[in-house]
Amino acid sequence: MSVTDRLIAAAEQYAAGFDKGHLPLPPAAGVAILACMDARLNPYGLLGLSEGDAHIIRNAGGVVTADARRSLAISQRLLGTREIVLIHHTDCGMLTFTDDGFKRDIEAEVGIRPDWAAEAFPDLDEDVVQSLNRIKADPFIPHKDAVRGFVYEVETGRLREVKA
Amino acid sequence: MSVTDRLIAAAEQYAAGFDKGHLPLPPAAGVAILACMDARLNPYGLLGLSEGDAHIIRNAGGVVTADARRSLAISQRLLGTREIVLIHHTDCGMLTFTDDGFKRDIEAEVGIRPDWAAEAFPDLDEDVVQSLNRIKADPFIPHKDAVRGFVYEVETGRLREVKA
Repeated sequence: MSVTDRLIAAAEQYAAGFDKGHLPLPPAAGVAILACMDARLNPYGLLGLSEGDAHIIRNAGGVVTADARRSLAISQRLLGTREIVLIHHTDCGMLTFTDDGFKRDIEAEVGIRPDWAAEAFPDLDEDVVQSLNRIKADPFIPHKDAVRGFVYEVETGRLREVKA
Repeated sequence: MSVTDRLIAAAEQYAAGFDKGHLPLPPAAGVAILACMDARLNPYGLLGLSEGDAHIIRNAGGVVTADARRSLAISQRLLGTREIVLIHHTDCGMLTFTDDGFKRDIEAEVGIRPDWAAEAFPDLDEDVVQSLNRIKADPFIPHKDAVRGFVYEVETGRLREVKA
């Protein structure tokens, strides 16, 4: 039985007890979270969120990429969110490599160098500030009065704010 | 009190009861989920996941963008995941607009047309197949034997597989 088969079995249990069929499309709390994909960072548990509350955008690093900015523009313009919460975390995989090394290894194996930035970063707090600055500089995200950045500590479960 | 302030207060509660400080960086289940950012789709509840289990990548639509492929390449190459689960869902915001209209509206307001594809789609099942095909075509994601696509039904809580 594959992991995916186990997840499908869990989903059958979820459907059996499901009572949230009438939630509206726009997030009730009017907030979009952008967080790292890391397995130890559970935005629902951490932030007390449940179904219907918030848009949750995640990628490797919780980086403010063009795709994250696309998602934030759609979130605010079409679905009414007004606040943004950025979450990086300690012991992040993005701290363990460099773009140059990672892409050189891929090129050596595949024969093609990725046409994207890997977005590795050497300093957590600096990258949260970088993320805040990228959102400030984006012309397509309309609401920027409530954008805040945090580091989640995987060792302690604490969320620590980083100011730009 | 802003929504973000309420989330911070919830995070203090989470830290107070935290007992997961020693989980390793690589996901225990060896799987990466790519899902839509929609507020009603909770991958933890739906798939029975908890802290440490899986990488979770999310964007507007659950689309296989360059950024999602970057995250999947990092997930597999640096952190050992081997299976991929793609999740779209019914009543998705991406079904309600077109790239042309959305970008024309932004251009009219801001004076600049976004330099990204909005990635709206008119048919859910077709876009799951599109996503499976994009992963198949990507040269940088090494493990493709266990890639499966699903539609989550926000009305019923059910997860339905879509075959390519």
